[in-house]
Amino acid sequence: MDIILLTGGARSGKSLRAEVRTRAFPGQPVYIATAEALDQEMGERIAKHRARRGKDWIEREVPLDLVQALIETDGGGARLVDCLTLWLSNLLHAERNWSHEASLLADALARQRSPVVMVTNEVGLGIVPDNALARAFRDAAGILNQTIASVADEVEFVVAGLPMKLK
Amino acid sequence: MDIILLTGGARSGKSLRAEVRTRAFPGQPVYIATAEALDQEMGERIAKHRARRGKDWIEREVPLDLVQALIETDGGGARLVDCLTLWLSNLLHAERNWSHEASLLADALARQRSPVVMVTNEVGLGIVPDNALARAFRDAAGILNQTIASVADEVEFVVAGLPMKLK
Amino acid sequence: MDIILLTGGARSGKSLRAEVRTRAFPGQPVYIATAEALDQEMGERIAKHRARRGKDWIEREVPLDLVQALIETDGGGARLVDCLTLWLSNLLHAERNWSHEASLLADALARQRSPVVMVTNEVGLGIVPDNALARAFRDAAGILNQTIASVADEVEFVVAGLPMKLK
Repeated sequence: MDIILLTGGARSGKSLRAEVRTRAFPGQPVYIATAEALDQEMGERIAKHRARRGKDWIEREVPLDLVQALIETDGGGARLVDCLTLWLSNLLHAERNWSHEASLLADALARQRSPVVMVTNEVGLGIVPDNALARAFRDAAGILNQTIASVADEVEFVVAGLPMKLK
Repeated sequence: MDIILLTGGARSGKSLRAEVRTRAFPGQPVYIATAEALDQEMGERIAKHRARRGKDWIEREVPLDLVQALIETDGGGARLVDCLTLWLSNLLHAERNWSHEASLLADALARQRSPVVMVTNEVGLGIVPDNALARAFRDAAGILNQTIASVADEVEFVVAGLPMKLK
Repeated sequence: MDIILLTGGARSGKSLRAEVRTRAFPGQPVYIATAEALDQEMGERIAKHRARRGKDWIEREVPLDLVQALIETDGGGARLVDCLTLWLSNLLHAERNWSHEASLLADALARQRSPVVMVTNEVGLGIVPDNALARAFRDAAGILNQTIASVADEVEFVVAGLPMKLK
């Protein structure tokens, strides 16, 4: 079993590294996108990532039901989940219980047969935000990262495209 | 002598790691809280940390006079100081000379007989804040971290609950 | 050939570390400042850095034409470029094509005979900025860091004055 978590800042090269790690496993890779193209900025970013990855990936858009998607795609090639921070944001917008969903995800990861490579973001290394909602989000993101890191087999912190091994 | 500094982002698992490191030393552990329960958000966080730690800690609330508290509690079990960034914030609000206090703390740490485990925050890895006060605070926090790291025996950078050894 | 990139947060001790690394090479060190003293805050920071470095450095102010400055100063002592993030900011203000300039810099670095030590900033580890311009800047800064890190011989991430080896 290979559960890999890649964390880092914005534009740190996490997604590219995750693609490389995912392709290194045998079988057809599966791309599980938590992003939805709700605005132009996001639409362009999604299109750019897709062009870079190439056409040999199975693609799924999964804004919320990540656990279900992992169960359904298990048994084939490695899955790349990009990214957990956006999934958290989607859960909060949908008024789901993110903390419960994070536990379910941790449990599901422990039962996967095919590899899972997950991308997440570090958002707690700046000045404390003025905004209470932003503070709550960065707290939730930090706890989600700790929860998933604790069940992962490997955790890397990516800076300037270069990985540091955390676990 | 064991002077340990744990740094990292918000909700990175620094405090839990600091508790584990402090308990690993013999004797009754001492918890030195620089936080005051000034609002509900802070009150809830303090209560949660206390519940997790358990009741076998000696507890002290020390918003400002950290050097004095270290001198008074020396000779017993290890001290956990949580956290230096809040202490800095308290010094600035009280219009104390934080730079002088940081030097006094560095000097006092060199003379401790019982271990000291300190938690601090990285706040300088986001976009430059618009606000001049926020910029001044992150500059001070960075300089404080460098000052204390330079006299510590061990420094760890905690990401997603996992430590990276800096020193 | 020695191309060294030092990255980290605000006031993390990057500049001091870069001075030490630059002085370790033979010959008279060259300080290439991308900062201009446009306001008092910046003026004071420049004066403080200069006082610390001492008078034995050749100094150049290069807000934009970094590639040209590297070519002109090649063949002597090591060059310290402080910093790339400000250079990026200057390019954006001057409405230059930063992405093209970053490629030219990467190419020029590969052809240097004398060492180059560069300082840059991590700005993408906080909460997503509200402001679209700030988001675009942190994206550009992240991509610039990846580009230069990919051609560097050594990359270090500096936290609390202490380096972690990335490459």
